[in-house]
Amino acid sequence: MKKVLFATTALVMTAGVAAAEVAITGEGRIGLRYESDTGYYNDYNEDGVNDADSSWNVVNRVRVKFNMTGESDAGITFGAKVRADQAARANRGDNSSSTVGEVFVSGAYGKLTAGDIDGALEQAVGDLPEVGLSGLDFWNEFAYATSEEVSYVIIDADGIERAVGADASLLYEYSFGNANLYASFSDGYYGNTDVKRDDNVWALGVGYDLGDYTFGIGYENADYTINPFLVEDNDVVTAAFGPIGFDTPSETWGISGGTSWNGITFKAAYLKTSSDEDLLDYAQYGLGMGYEMSNGVGLTAFYRKNDFKNVEVDGRAFGLGASYDLGGGATIKGGIVDSKINFGDEDISNTLADFGLEFRF
Amino acid sequence: MKKVLFATTALVMTAGVAAAEVAITGEGRIGLRYESDTGYYNDYNEDGVNDADSSWNVVNRVRVKFNMTGESDAGITFGAKVRADQAARANRGDNSSSTVGEVFVSGAYGKLTAGDIDGALEQAVGDLPEVGLSGLDFWNEFAYATSEEVSYVIIDADGIERAVGADASLLYEYSFGNANLYASFSDGYYGNTDVKRDDNVWALGVGYDLGDYTFGIGYENADYTINPFLVEDNDVVTAAFGPIGFDTPSETWGISGGTSWNGITFKAAYLKTSSDEDLLDYAQYGLGMGYEMSNGVGLTAFYRKNDFKNVEVDGRAFGLGASYDLGGGATIKGGIVDSKINFGDEDISNTLADFGLEFRF
Amino acid sequence: MKKVLFATTALVMTAGVAAAEVAITGEGRIGLRYESDTGYYNDYNEDGVNDADSSWNVVNRVRVKFNMTGESDAGITFGAKVRADQAARANRGDNSSSTVGEVFVSGAYGKLTAGDIDGALEQAVGDLPEVGLSGLDFWNEFAYATSEEVSYVIIDADGIERAVGADASLLYEYSFGNANLYASFSDGYYGNTDVKRDDNVWALGVGYDLGDYTFGIGYENADYTINPFLVEDNDVVTAAFGPIGFDTPSETWGISGGTSWNGITFKAAYLKTSSDEDLLDYAQYGLGMGYEMSNGVGLTAFYRKNDFKNVEVDGRAFGLGASYDLGGGATIKGGIVDSKINFGDEDISNTLADFGLEFRF
Repeated sequence: MKKVLFATTALVMTAGVAAAEVAITGEGRIGLRYESDTGYYNDYNEDGVNDADSSWNVVNRVRVKFNMTGESDAGITFGAKVRADQAARANRGDNSSSTVGEVFVSGAYGKLTAGDIDGALEQAVGDLPEVGLSGLDFWNEFAYATSEEVSYVIIDADGIERAVGADASLLYEYSFGNANLYASFSDGYYGNTDVKRDDNVWALGVGYDLGDYTFGIGYENADYTINPFLVEDNDVVTAAFGPIGFDTPSETWGISGGTSWNGITFKAAYLKTSSDEDLLDYAQYGLGMGYEMSNGVGLTAFYRKNDFKNVEVDGRAFGLGASYDLGGGATIKGGIVDSKINFGDEDISNTLADFGLEFRF
Repeated sequence: MKKVLFATTALVMTAGVAAAEVAITGEGRIGLRYESDTGYYNDYNEDGVNDADSSWNVVNRVRVKFNMTGESDAGITFGAKVRADQAARANRGDNSSSTVGEVFVSGAYGKLTAGDIDGALEQAVGDLPEVGLSGLDFWNEFAYATSEEVSYVIIDADGIERAVGADASLLYEYSFGNANLYASFSDGYYGNTDVKRDDNVWALGVGYDLGDYTFGIGYENADYTINPFLVEDNDVVTAAFGPIGFDTPSETWGISGGTSWNGITFKAAYLKTSSDEDLLDYAQYGLGMGYEMSNGVGLTAFYRKNDFKNVEVDGRAFGLGASYDLGGGATIKGGIVDSKINFGDEDISNTLADFGLEFRF
Repeated sequence: MKKVLFATTALVMTAGVAAAEVAITGEGRIGLRYESDTGYYNDYNEDGVNDADSSWNVVNRVRVKFNMTGESDAGITFGAKVRADQAARANRGDNSSSTVGEVFVSGAYGKLTAGDIDGALEQAVGDLPEVGLSGLDFWNEFAYATSEEVSYVIIDADGIERAVGADASLLYEYSFGNANLYASFSDGYYGNTDVKRDDNVWALGVGYDLGDYTFGIGYENADYTINPFLVEDNDVVTAAFGPIGFDTPSETWGISGGTSWNGITFKAAYLKTSSDEDLLDYAQYGLGMGYEMSNGVGLTAFYRKNDFKNVEVDGRAFGLGASYDLGGGATIKGGIVDSKINFGDEDISNTLADFGLEFRF
């Protein structure tokens, strides 16, 4: 027997009775994706020759999302989010923290969220607009030490790779007037052990929304230095160049501003990371643009640059995306990202492109 | 607070507004299963003596299914299917393809499906009727090179076992009049790499539905040769005899026909596989029958034979199943399959039987 | 497009038509948890010094539950339960049994459940009241040889650790008058093999509900001896002291009784385990109390003791929990458990405490 979830946004509840709901939505996509150099820097062989090649791939994916919300008698709202594919990891937490999904509680004193959150600096400063169907390695996202993907491999002082992270972070948000305050920190011990994490991160941020203009500023303090060349490859965080992070404490300041003009939104952001190891100091900055036309066509674009201060390493990526809303939850999407990394007199390029259909249920 | 999904097949939507839904259904079963020789050929010890023994097992299982559908403003339908147990694997696909679940888009020019599909040859020629509660190793299903279970281990030219597959396949379907055309092919590169798969498969098929008679014919071209003695043991594809496949290209032609008479349906199918290695040439063929009585009793039966052309290996399986519909989604089911494999002057037999209750929610 | 499940407990069905439903609920929690000695006995170093330390952890968790029910035309009820995080393991069962989730069928002749069940002795005698937000290692639960967590590691006769269990158990329940009869047994073979399990368990129990008084008595026969010092750490069953079990058959008798007085419920239970190895004989017993006040405050408490008969090993745990119902599915919960294990003249203590919010959707 088939069960149909009524397609409606109306919430049925008897007046005055607080209720809790589980809303279920889904996503699917089908398309093609091209990459000109599947290995980035990592395909260089022993002779220093880049023997990476291009590939075309079918990209198809299905997701189911559960969004749970409720309200206490006194008006405190609470909720939880988890995807079906995250369920196993989100179920941990008898005596330590889950790193996927989110649980939140919100009242007059602000909102507290635990789980797979973006840190306070990312909340305030944000990322650049995404392009394409499949994210295209998410070059539009700056590297933040507190990230949704908290499991990193770092190279420690002895040159040994170690898995890092995998504990939850907490985010506190408070709004007054046009300002949103953010504070975040990561859990202090590995799992349920007495081993103190040496990869703690805390961050502070504030965002202002002045109607036509938005501003964000924030600070992040991490017990390690994240590599700005992070890319996301099949849900796994890797780096286009170098290791994922370095076992040296770092501080990051960031600022961003945005405005809109004739329906076109613009954004600029600048992030400066100072590591205890001077060779790891770098800046990340970029520009983004978005345009939603009334006929269903959307355009997004970004330009981003990573620049190491004391070593000859820099990189830039440029992305352009277009979409057309077919109605009913279906959208045609396509995008292209051109990335280039320079180290010394060597250049690494990778061009990514995709095209296909995205469905929202 | 408990949420009850309204049990109805009616779809609530405002006239003229395209809508997208997530329908949730479930399955459960509880029963017993007998196997006379749990190891098939693989239990032969060093002295060539089959020391396999019989076993009785409780078989219980629960599944949750998500079926998502939508329609664009212009009338293009789309959808996605995934089970809760498949969610983690179906979520891959940022830059390569998922091998479980399905995403489809369908319009006037046909239907395109990506993911865990049956190939064009299997779509056109099909399998024999399933018997029993638990599938009984699915002896009723012919071995197809494009299969729902695309992850195979093959023996390569150097005699080394290698995992093969694990990328999605695409299926295109188009109907006109009484004919259904099918075309399928598998993704060209391993994951998101520049390594070309040497296990590509493409297939073509056509099926005719002439009311009382149905016909199917198709062709499959594979970069390897699949073993016809595939069985499915706890969701893992293994072989009752020999390896799962061989690293030699092959071609397969297949044909099937069916009819019904006094409520009894009959089906016959013949498949011929020619491998580049002549010793691997074989034929698969069989007969099936189904009978749904008005009192809720159902009967299914099949006879299937695998016959190697140039080596003394053949096998046959005979299956008989019965069911009784208790209403409300509950069905009593039982079945028996008797399989025998001959190689040289050796015989391997395995009798499988099960009995229990199947529930659909 | 967002789908909202109607929040209601009313079941919509046409009169006389049997229906099957999938009900979806969720749980979330967010809080802090303290442990004074994260390693229990296992943190003793080579010099016999306990170098374990304390830890504070964020505990956050999200769960999604599917509860499926149906009724046949003849009035037989059936159903299945599974959580999203259990889906992958609950899907096994083509030819052996799933150890998570549950499938049941129920009629005039009683109820049969397969899967992740509590055995007949635990059904009849039960456990003590749970305290706190996160279970606090579940010291309130007695160790039963048939448990929800059927995957154990035991030390066999040769001193080698072996994984044990991981097959489903069956539970049969029958009620008449004030009595509930229970019988349970575990599946006879490992997976789908001809290897007979040497860790079978069967159990019988009976419970009486006489309004103000309840009684339970039962017997469990196991091919191994379970360690009474089992604790549950992040969904993994471990032992606070010693291995998880011993490869020696054992018998357990248990009895419990309860009553309520002015809204306060009391419970006492006594379990005696006789192992074939006399050094492993032990008793488990305890007292529990619960109080639900009309203003939404709840209190629970337990005292439990484990006492080995022929070796100088004993232990006790005391727990106290409080909760306050905020309405709408939100509850503030906190608890503390103080545990102590004595072996010879050595003492191991661990104090656990937690505090936070629990949400039910």
